[in-house]
Amino acid sequence: MGYTARRYKKGNEESYTLGTTLTIELLKQKPEICKQVYLHSDLSGLGLETIITLCNKNSIPYEVNNKVFNVLSQKENCFAIGIFEVFQSELVKKTDHVVLVNPSNNGNLGTIMRSMCGFGVKDLGIITPSVDIFDPKTVRSSMGAIFDLRVKYYSSFDEYLEDVGARPFYPFMLQAKSSLTDFPFEHPSTLVYGNEASGLPRDFLEKGYPLIINHSKEIDSLNLPIAVSISLYEFTKKRFN
Amino acid sequence: MGYTARRYKKGNEESYTLGTTLTIELLKQKPEICKQVYLHSDLSGLGLETIITLCNKNSIPYEVNNKVFNVLSQKENCFAIGIFEVFQSELVKKTDHVVLVNPSNNGNLGTIMRSMCGFGVKDLGIITPSVDIFDPKTVRSSMGAIFDLRVKYYSSFDEYLEDVGARPFYPFMLQAKSSLTDFPFEHPSTLVYGNEASGLPRDFLEKGYPLIINHSKEIDSLNLPIAVSISLYEFTKKRFN
Repeated sequence: MGYTARRYKKGNEESYTLGTTLTIELLKQKPEICKQVYLHSDLSGLGLETIITLCNKNSIPYEVNNKVFNVLSQKENCFAIGIFEVFQSELVKKTDHVVLVNPSNNGNLGTIMRSMCGFGVKDLGIITPSVDIFDPKTVRSSMGAIFDLRVKYYSSFDEYLEDVGARPFYPFMLQAKSSLTDFPFEHPSTLVYGNEASGLPRDFLEKGYPLIINHSKEIDSLNLPIAVSISLYEFTKKRFN
Repeated sequence: MGYTARRYKKGNEESYTLGTTLTIELLKQKPEICKQVYLHSDLSGLGLETIITLCNKNSIPYEVNNKVFNVLSQKENCFAIGIFEVFQSELVKKTDHVVLVNPSNNGNLGTIMRSMCGFGVKDLGIITPSVDIFDPKTVRSSMGAIFDLRVKYYSSFDEYLEDVGARPFYPFMLQAKSSLTDFPFEHPSTLVYGNEASGLPRDFLEKGYPLIINHSKEIDSLNLPIAVSISLYEFTKKRFN
């Protein structure tokens, strides 16, 4: 088929979904970027039927090829792989956003994308350096949410603001004075989070409306996806209740 | 020292902390269960000093032994290991609890323990079958919170209720009618969550006060540690604000 399977590396123009459910999400949500599907000979039943139906509908080639699984997947229970072109999207100016400054963990990034989908915030800015959103581990931990978001990289927070225009934003910081709870958020606006280990640079205390999620002193901080998800819950609760 | 290093398996009477910070947490919070500390010859600085001080204070033997790291640790950045006896504790009846029914992922369980510490809910009941709370992966992902909680296994939710006595409880279920948001929780009471993939058995709809965390229809469900943490945040927010 002209495609040579090779393990993903940052900067590659193609990445892949590892798993049946994830491949179906790709085919349902972004068929236009899917170039090829590989099926394991052990795949059968509804998963197989759904993938073949979606491939046929979207004129995407598929083939049974167990060798590709040896190269791309290290899990023994992976029976479908979708090759897709990596993408970036412009963020929408009239919607709420999340900005992650220098996120460093693939699994965390995927979990955050899943929570964003869960709370209907679909625009994600990422300030580099950061982990790669198209790493197969990130894609997998997003459980397909990555195909339902608009994601764009920026080299600085100022560059992000220039791109999307002035808007209220809320940096989450342990040094902030105002509590998240019942905070009167404006919309559209942006929730901003720092790196897992180091948090946001201190100068964010002078920018926007810094907020803290109050918790006991017995832990240093909440895990990053937990902090993002709790604040997304509070930020959007009027829409879902 | 009489101790033979061997990789942890479920049912072992001893487990271990992998990492300097985690070993310090063990030595600070539960020195009475720590039997031995191993130091890598590359460890230096404040981490080394802190561990030696805590070992001396608590009469815990320590030795430099790089071979133990080859056996127990697969990460290259692990420079301290603390061997500890696994433990269970009675739950306290007058406090709030979390109960996890059949949790199946080590990392999730550790993250949940960290959030429990963060929101001051210190009693955890686990309904078996479940992953092992003393698996080194769970211990690591708890970032030491495991040493600050009371944890007890039960073979059924009824056995849990018999042990702690009648109390209000809130099963989290996608089929529930009442929303978490601004729910008038009683205290002490218990938040109850099901397995990552299958959720709680349907008969929990007839028990306690089932609650749902409302979210968009674009994801099937929130990740388990996210759901637990959002509800712990809401459950305890009056204490922290």
